[in-house]
Amino acid sequence: MAKSITKIGVMTSGGDAPGMNAAIRAVVRTCAYHSIDCVGIYRGYQGMIEGDFKPMNARSVNNIVNKGGTILKSARSKEFRTKEGRKKAFDQLLDYGIDALVLIGGDGTFTGGLVFNEEYKFPIIGIPGTIDNDIYGTTFTLGYDTALNTVVEAIDKIRDTASSHDRLFFVEVMGRDAGDIALNAGVGAGAEEILIPEEDMGLERLLDSLKRSKKSGKASSIVVVAEGDKTGKNVFELAEYVEENLPDYEVRVSVLGHMQRGGSPSCYDRVLASRMGVKAVESLLDGKSNFMVGVKNDEIILTPLDKAVKGKSEIDQELLRVSDIMTT
Amino acid sequence: MAKSITKIGVMTSGGDAPGMNAAIRAVVRTCAYHSIDCVGIYRGYQGMIEGDFKPMNARSVNNIVNKGGTILKSARSKEFRTKEGRKKAFDQLLDYGIDALVLIGGDGTFTGGLVFNEEYKFPIIGIPGTIDNDIYGTTFTLGYDTALNTVVEAIDKIRDTASSHDRLFFVEVMGRDAGDIALNAGVGAGAEEILIPEEDMGLERLLDSLKRSKKSGKASSIVVVAEGDKTGKNVFELAEYVEENLPDYEVRVSVLGHMQRGGSPSCYDRVLASRMGVKAVESLLDGKSNFMVGVKNDEIILTPLDKAVKGKSEIDQELLRVSDIMTT
Amino acid sequence: MAKSITKIGVMTSGGDAPGMNAAIRAVVRTCAYHSIDCVGIYRGYQGMIEGDFKPMNARSVNNIVNKGGTILKSARSKEFRTKEGRKKAFDQLLDYGIDALVLIGGDGTFTGGLVFNEEYKFPIIGIPGTIDNDIYGTTFTLGYDTALNTVVEAIDKIRDTASSHDRLFFVEVMGRDAGDIALNAGVGAGAEEILIPEEDMGLERLLDSLKRSKKSGKASSIVVVAEGDKTGKNVFELAEYVEENLPDYEVRVSVLGHMQRGGSPSCYDRVLASRMGVKAVESLLDGKSNFMVGVKNDEIILTPLDKAVKGKSEIDQELLRVSDIMTT
Amino acid sequence: MAKSITKIGVMTSGGDAPGMNAAIRAVVRTCAYHSIDCVGIYRGYQGMIEGDFKPMNARSVNNIVNKGGTILKSARSKEFRTKEGRKKAFDQLLDYGIDALVLIGGDGTFTGGLVFNEEYKFPIIGIPGTIDNDIYGTTFTLGYDTALNTVVEAIDKIRDTASSHDRLFFVEVMGRDAGDIALNAGVGAGAEEILIPEEDMGLERLLDSLKRSKKSGKASSIVVVAEGDKTGKNVFELAEYVEENLPDYEVRVSVLGHMQRGGSPSCYDRVLASRMGVKAVESLLDGKSNFMVGVKNDEIILTPLDKAVKGKSEIDQELLRVSDIMTT
Repeated sequence: MAKSITKIGVMTSGGDAPGMNAAIRAVVRTCAYHSIDCVGIYRGYQGMIEGDFKPMNARSVNNIVNKGGTILKSARSKEFRTKEGRKKAFDQLLDYGIDALVLIGGDGTFTGGLVFNEEYKFPIIGIPGTIDNDIYGTTFTLGYDTALNTVVEAIDKIRDTASSHDRLFFVEVMGRDAGDIALNAGVGAGAEEILIPEEDMGLERLLDSLKRSKKSGKASSIVVVAEGDKTGKNVFELAEYVEENLPDYEVRVSVLGHMQRGGSPSCYDRVLASRMGVKAVESLLDGKSNFMVGVKNDEIILTPLDKAVKGKSEIDQELLRVSDIMTT
Repeated sequence: MAKSITKIGVMTSGGDAPGMNAAIRAVVRTCAYHSIDCVGIYRGYQGMIEGDFKPMNARSVNNIVNKGGTILKSARSKEFRTKEGRKKAFDQLLDYGIDALVLIGGDGTFTGGLVFNEEYKFPIIGIPGTIDNDIYGTTFTLGYDTALNTVVEAIDKIRDTASSHDRLFFVEVMGRDAGDIALNAGVGAGAEEILIPEEDMGLERLLDSLKRSKKSGKASSIVVVAEGDKTGKNVFELAEYVEENLPDYEVRVSVLGHMQRGGSPSCYDRVLASRMGVKAVESLLDGKSNFMVGVKNDEIILTPLDKAVKGKSEIDQELLRVSDIMTT
Repeated sequence: MAKSITKIGVMTSGGDAPGMNAAIRAVVRTCAYHSIDCVGIYRGYQGMIEGDFKPMNARSVNNIVNKGGTILKSARSKEFRTKEGRKKAFDQLLDYGIDALVLIGGDGTFTGGLVFNEEYKFPIIGIPGTIDNDIYGTTFTLGYDTALNTVVEAIDKIRDTASSHDRLFFVEVMGRDAGDIALNAGVGAGAEEILIPEEDMGLERLLDSLKRSKKSGKASSIVVVAEGDKTGKNVFELAEYVEENLPDYEVRVSVLGHMQRGGSPSCYDRVLASRMGVKAVESLLDGKSNFMVGVKNDEIILTPLDKAVKGKSEIDQELLRVSDIMTT
Repeated sequence: MAKSITKIGVMTSGGDAPGMNAAIRAVVRTCAYHSIDCVGIYRGYQGMIEGDFKPMNARSVNNIVNKGGTILKSARSKEFRTKEGRKKAFDQLLDYGIDALVLIGGDGTFTGGLVFNEEYKFPIIGIPGTIDNDIYGTTFTLGYDTALNTVVEAIDKIRDTASSHDRLFFVEVMGRDAGDIALNAGVGAGAEEILIPEEDMGLERLLDSLKRSKKSGKASSIVVVAEGDKTGKNVFELAEYVEENLPDYEVRVSVLGHMQRGGSPSCYDRVLASRMGVKAVESLLDGKSNFMVGVKNDEIILTPLDKAVKGKSEIDQELLRVSDIMTT
């Protein structure tokens, strides 16, 4: 029989995402609700190794539901990739009386957790916190909805300038392996073309599409490009290529960059974080381990953590088609 | 065999909602994509009766994806509730060569459409556009996500003042019959209590909860109240009642009002509108009628329109529980 | 010769305003820069009486420049209006070694400060923090610019709904004695009429103006009403009056309320707060007292505190005329 | 005696700026108020040469007060730099009956206007519309206040990430020749250092300052860099330089780019645009020419246009000092 859990550690790791604080708050308050102790682990696995812990109660998380970033901070840890590092981490947890973990982060965070669990049978539950929405087992990751709003608001501003000057803008958004932000924000912002890592539209098609757009009477255009798009050219090279081949267009480039990771979370992300935090703690209390909390059909579900890590989140083909139709 | 469709009319009706323009744009562009004519019907059923029509092409809907309100305007029509009114509307549509309709609105809009369809066998497809999220057959209605963000941003501001002065705020949000906005925005904004039409929490429980909150060390509190809450008191009476029974609290009231209906739509609402617009037009072209487009499990689906009107959208019991836990 | 100052207390009092935290930060950091001690006084004069003090250093004010409200909190104090109350406050300051005060607030705050200074010759400098912009001796008060942006953003949303339904909206904004918010936000939001405490436009003129607006082809209208307008009717009575006299109009009311006091300060308010905070501390160190810091012609100036309290900030007649012309 | 003016042309030129539409609206409505005709000139001087004109009345400018960009569009014109080009422009104006111009733009726009005026004695008044705030004769240019808010909001988001990961961010903002945006947004966003075109702080001082900041306990830092800063290194080179010399810091770069030019104008910019538009038209009607409208001490004033072009707007030394003190 599983030892009953009395003290849960909560940690954020990997790139920060809006909603992480709301998730921390939910974990802490759910522990309080069930009269379980809760401990904040600072700076991810590195803080775990160094014993950078702080007890948290319901009042420790006042007024953070609407804050971007993570009050527990995040950091990379090379040491945790070593057996020795993980041993230290385990000893610290033991010393502090922590007997289960809620890990908020992405693929890397969960992979670390799986290895740790295999070695020490330490109960863990993951919460997917990353703006990239690239995790299998959940329709939405924490921070993704906020990032989409940040991106469309920025492109709305760029469009003011684009249409005032009849210009073509290439806007680079985050997404090294996943085109979700580019595709959804592109459709949301009314982009003329969207270049993503999952599909190679080819440079010829891009030129054709822009020619057609010009011909149809559109004076200005926005092309949204994911960091990891398949054309083999980065956003500046793409702009140059188009300027050479379509001299009619006056081309500009904007790289939205790190502001996409920050900001006050959207209502959706705050609510999702609250629901996931409750589920994570109550799953641990139910004796479950090695699962990731996710949302499907607006319900909170569990997926085995190894599946979440190995599974491949796929691009929405229907939305690709919608995007095509919208640029008519 | 169904007569093939060559000219689609699109109309908004009922209370306006962010995302309606994005849906109009999607309907118009999908028509253009399929080389079908599209006609904008102004001011809802009243404009239909008066023949207030305007042909629309792909360029007519440039730069509206990010605008609140509806460029087609909305209005109530007593006349359409009469047989004579509907006859006039039918004649106008016939005259103009319109052979199918996309109706963007809520319950009232769809009810009108159903009656009209029964009398004239006129092909119709509905798109749920209302901030209240009170329509069966779709997890989210257009405008709901935007309204949630508007509400949490407003409450975030109110909280600045509440916590600076250690006050208790009652904030009234929209929702005469549905507590979705109150419940989700309440959880998102970290409200201490949430009063909704679907559940009668009772005044005693409210007082207990506020006493507990004070005792637990919270200096300020927000109570979110849906317009149609079950306590039998409006938000001002509630505030007075609490002030009389809990003299410790300095109470203030804020009624968020109509700003909840406006504003630039969130990315989610823009994308949802685009997907729904495509589906609505293509369903008509497929010979379908009397359906409402909806979203379930992030997929666009159809629900018989009469079911959408009669069905009851239910409050999320899991989220009620999450709300309770969060106020620990 | 004035005793040299070694420990400055900083306090916020009265209604909170965005930028107060930025001003606190500036006071604290300017003390640190000059190697002077700084003490935060919580909850205004009441906290002063109770000795609710906390030493602050440069790091105590990290990450607050962008936060609404006031970390020092604000409260009313009846006790400070009594001689005994002020004696207690003085004793507390003496006990704690505080030898000068920076008071952030409005008229009431400064009046309290003047009385205190008269009795105890305690060096004080005021910083005008109030959204109402009703203080003599400064072109802008802290929080005013932010409040204007909050109001126009809210009215922009309401206008979406107004123009979708061809409605007339009465929007009440803050300003019991000063029409600055109403006038500036009204012009900024393109309001058709603006009712303020300083001028009685008369109900007849309002009706005429609305008739003219309708005739000129405007389908929807916004009337901005300051809390303290001169018509003798509140915003609901005004709406009723217009609806009775102009049955063409469908009228709605929105009271913006307390959200106007909160929110992340605008860049202008943050910079102004920083400049004022520096000036306040350095004026005290220069041996000055009984002044209010203000801004005129983009320069930071000092005004005798009694003048600031007694002086009357006047409504901008030129802007009233601009407002008239804009509603052509 | 000056010929009385009966038809005014209004034009935007150069980089677009939020508030340009509000200024166009004010010009058009002031013409309507004085029963003067008004003509929109599209695409700046190039449209003037091509006779791209459209009559405008009070209703043509409904619902644009809150829109970014310019409905009249903007473009560069090489042709207008030639005598022939300007002759064509003059003939077009004559043909269309336009007898005076309001030019909304920056230095380049005004220089063109001066040459044109010299050759044809054509009455012109300028309105300073540019986010850079680099024009002599006005404390604020149109769009500047909005751009500051856009920048601080973006940096607030970046700070979420910076402080979650204890990173140092270099953020590049607009300003090739003027450091106003960098300095004000830098102070507003709480930047640790600010690099501007007007002052060479030197790389050594930057390193010292960052070392001091680290030592003082700040875990994360933001350095704001104007495009045209004096160090001789661009923002990427600066980041590399710091990373090499201060290996403790994990450095990231963000270039905010064109989004700074767009967006819904702040209330201040809308009101300023309205006041300037009125003054521009009424100055022409008063027989004035070759002036630029500006704001000083919150009053609308006129400056000879050649002075506005030649004069040098200077960096605010007091604010540089405030910035230093704030980074204590």
